[in-house]
Amino acid sequence: MTTLEHCQALDARDPLRPLRDLFTLPAGVIYLDGNSLGVLPSHVPARVADVVTREWGQDLIQSWNRAGWFDLPRRVGDRIAPLIGAGPGEVTATDTTSINLHKALGAALALAAQRTGDSAADGGPASPPRRRTILSERSNFPTDLYIAEALCRQHGLQLALVDAPQDIAARLAPDVAVLMLTHVNYRTGAMHDMAALTAAAHAAGALAVWDLCHSVGAVPVDLTAAQADFAVGCTYKYLNGGPGAPAFVWAHPRHVSQPWQPLAGWWGHARPFAFTPGYQPAPGIARYQCGTQPIISLSALDAALDVFDAAAPLGGMAALRAKSLALTDLFIALVEALCPGQFTLVTPRAHGQRGSQVCLTPTAALPAGCAYAIVQALIARGVIGDFRAGDDAQPDILRFGFTPLYLSHEDVFHAAHHLQGVLQKQEYTRPEFNQRHAVT
Amino acid sequence: MTTLEHCQALDARDPLRPLRDLFTLPAGVIYLDGNSLGVLPSHVPARVADVVTREWGQDLIQSWNRAGWFDLPRRVGDRIAPLIGAGPGEVTATDTTSINLHKALGAALALAAQRTGDSAADGGPASPPRRRTILSERSNFPTDLYIAEALCRQHGLQLALVDAPQDIAARLAPDVAVLMLTHVNYRTGAMHDMAALTAAAHAAGALAVWDLCHSVGAVPVDLTAAQADFAVGCTYKYLNGGPGAPAFVWAHPRHVSQPWQPLAGWWGHARPFAFTPGYQPAPGIARYQCGTQPIISLSALDAALDVFDAAAPLGGMAALRAKSLALTDLFIALVEALCPGQFTLVTPRAHGQRGSQVCLTPTAALPAGCAYAIVQALIARGVIGDFRAGDDAQPDILRFGFTPLYLSHEDVFHAAHHLQGVLQKQEYTRPEFNQRHAVT
Repeated sequence: MTTLEHCQALDARDPLRPLRDLFTLPAGVIYLDGNSLGVLPSHVPARVADVVTREWGQDLIQSWNRAGWFDLPRRVGDRIAPLIGAGPGEVTATDTTSINLHKALGAALALAAQRTGDSAADGGPASPPRRRTILSERSNFPTDLYIAEALCRQHGLQLALVDAPQDIAARLAPDVAVLMLTHVNYRTGAMHDMAALTAAAHAAGALAVWDLCHSVGAVPVDLTAAQADFAVGCTYKYLNGGPGAPAFVWAHPRHVSQPWQPLAGWWGHARPFAFTPGYQPAPGIARYQCGTQPIISLSALDAALDVFDAAAPLGGMAALRAKSLALTDLFIALVEALCPGQFTLVTPRAHGQRGSQVCLTPTAALPAGCAYAIVQALIARGVIGDFRAGDDAQPDILRFGFTPLYLSHEDVFHAAHHLQGVLQKQEYTRPEFNQRHAVT
Repeated sequence: MTTLEHCQALDARDPLRPLRDLFTLPAGVIYLDGNSLGVLPSHVPARVADVVTREWGQDLIQSWNRAGWFDLPRRVGDRIAPLIGAGPGEVTATDTTSINLHKALGAALALAAQRTGDSAADGGPASPPRRRTILSERSNFPTDLYIAEALCRQHGLQLALVDAPQDIAARLAPDVAVLMLTHVNYRTGAMHDMAALTAAAHAAGALAVWDLCHSVGAVPVDLTAAQADFAVGCTYKYLNGGPGAPAFVWAHPRHVSQPWQPLAGWWGHARPFAFTPGYQPAPGIARYQCGTQPIISLSALDAALDVFDAAAPLGGMAALRAKSLALTDLFIALVEALCPGQFTLVTPRAHGQRGSQVCLTPTAALPAGCAYAIVQALIARGVIGDFRAGDDAQPDILRFGFTPLYLSHEDVFHAAHHLQGVLQKQEYTRPEFNQRHAVT
């Protein structure tokens, strides 16, 4: 079994080791929840303070020009673009993932309707078009399904859900207008083959819309190589943009200037400050903008992306991916050695199918329903992961995210040993670890 | 004419005078652009720093519970509610005005379709419903018109625009599903009679959706007394929430739990952390939430609203309105005395039709096209207002917003004298004041 000394040796020769010093990690914490909310980069508070006190407080309205607030969504988008295989000018950072997914799905449905001759002359989806189905997975992050469900209600379409990834290709029948998938599953950490599934969608005459919430900054993504149609994602997980930081949206250049997206607001207008009563969409991705953006939160995200500038000369996403796999491999190996027979690995073991997290479910060797308390006991020990409840179709899970920017092999070593300690001392039986919070 | 001494005497007995000390006003500036971006309340930087360094940096994911991030939109909404005549639990602070207008209009259209028997069983609008028209004004803020225009494209409806407020009532024909108006016009400062127009809409069988961007915090609003149906508004103008601070949305309790709004995301789900694949809207206004909100920007807004807590014992919105009218009356009187015949007043003189701004357009006594340069010359003198270009239907204007929270009668006195000075010295002829910025 891997020793502490070996982990320390791995850390000593980790080319990404300097990146950890860019973050403010709470004392005594091993943070394995960066897949939910990334850690604060140390320089972000100063940038936020400057935006608040100087850009807002002193320069006031002039900062729309002087500080470039109006262009900030596209400037931030240009910094996200290289992390997802998109080109300059193809991404904008704006609104939320849910809202952006509504825009992307709405545009994709309009394109699909155009192709089948179902659309009105103005490019809106006809009702009902011949391709009437949005296809996704039942295990997709719920808000994606809710957004699709609402669009289906509005346009008389149907949302079809498959239960397993291997069922997707078979369900790509001629009724499918859009295949909507999340690249890395929020719950299991399982990763799709984006290129293969996009190709399968295209072969079936459908468009592919990808949610990159659990991919961007964690695993290499190449939207251009995959020939994907649309993508959205969030920035508060592996991009460390801060709580609820604005999300992003990408449309392939072959689509971006074609249909209107359904949330046509003034920040997406070709000449927003002409204040004309009729909408004229801006060229390019700017038309996927809608209303005035939260500049303070967006500035925190902008600053946070400096970390990826620092990572680039150290190997960038390829190096981050290599370390992520090393950390998750190490955690799996340690848990299997230290807690034999007590957990089933939910996350795929194959590298090509794994994101940057490891999910475990207790076996029958542990008391039923103990997963929540195990997570609470770990948090009490300073090891922060999270719990996701199961249902009829899926088990309770312990979820551990591994952000290679700021986690070390030694962190992983200690986390696994803490997990062993929780089990050995049956800490999950303590009442204080069995009180449920309303929100996690 | 009013003297400086008289203005100083008015300030000395102004009951709202202590509120000015709650703001950080840049040195040497008379800020008449609070109708575009409100001034920084002095305590906001400390709150923002605490959210960034402690809530995010130290407590990380636990702040969703511990710091109440998840409930923050509704807590902030409850603080906005008394400013607009809404009850507790009726308002949420979320997304942007444009996005919230899409939600409110979408819900209103679904309600209208239900009433005429045009809707599907699930409450979505049928296509086309019998009431096929959204009615608004050509002079409404453009993003409102764009949002309505896009909804019309999606649902096969039409957007009908009247050219003058007095034409609205006559255009409320049986085809109108929704009357969509902005309470105070962004350009002219003209204010509608919300109660009368809502009653007229209802009498015609239509619903009334109000945009309060230029009203909230500036003029008393009573949505409940007006029996309005839906309302939206922004928080970065007279509420001083910071650049692009999240907007708000209100639905009358008689409507709030009826239709789905079209942007059904997980923050609007009845049990968001159950992660179920099917959407179940939350009871009440929470269903108008969609995705994860920008907590840093939202926290700045929350802190900024402390100013209105401080204003309440000093007379609240009634006192703010009285001072606003006094300031705008004073500015009008001074400009007419100091710059006789050189400007036409665009803003209504009648108190009942005036918001909290004064707009002027140069007369033929001044060189054609000089409005932009006059505004630039004033800015160079430290008097910050803004310019809005005219077109075939409306003239160029100088726009001055008067926020009674932090402006004094003395500020108004000096602003008017600076305007006189710009004209007397013909500063608008200087080349540096005639260079146009891309964005204002």
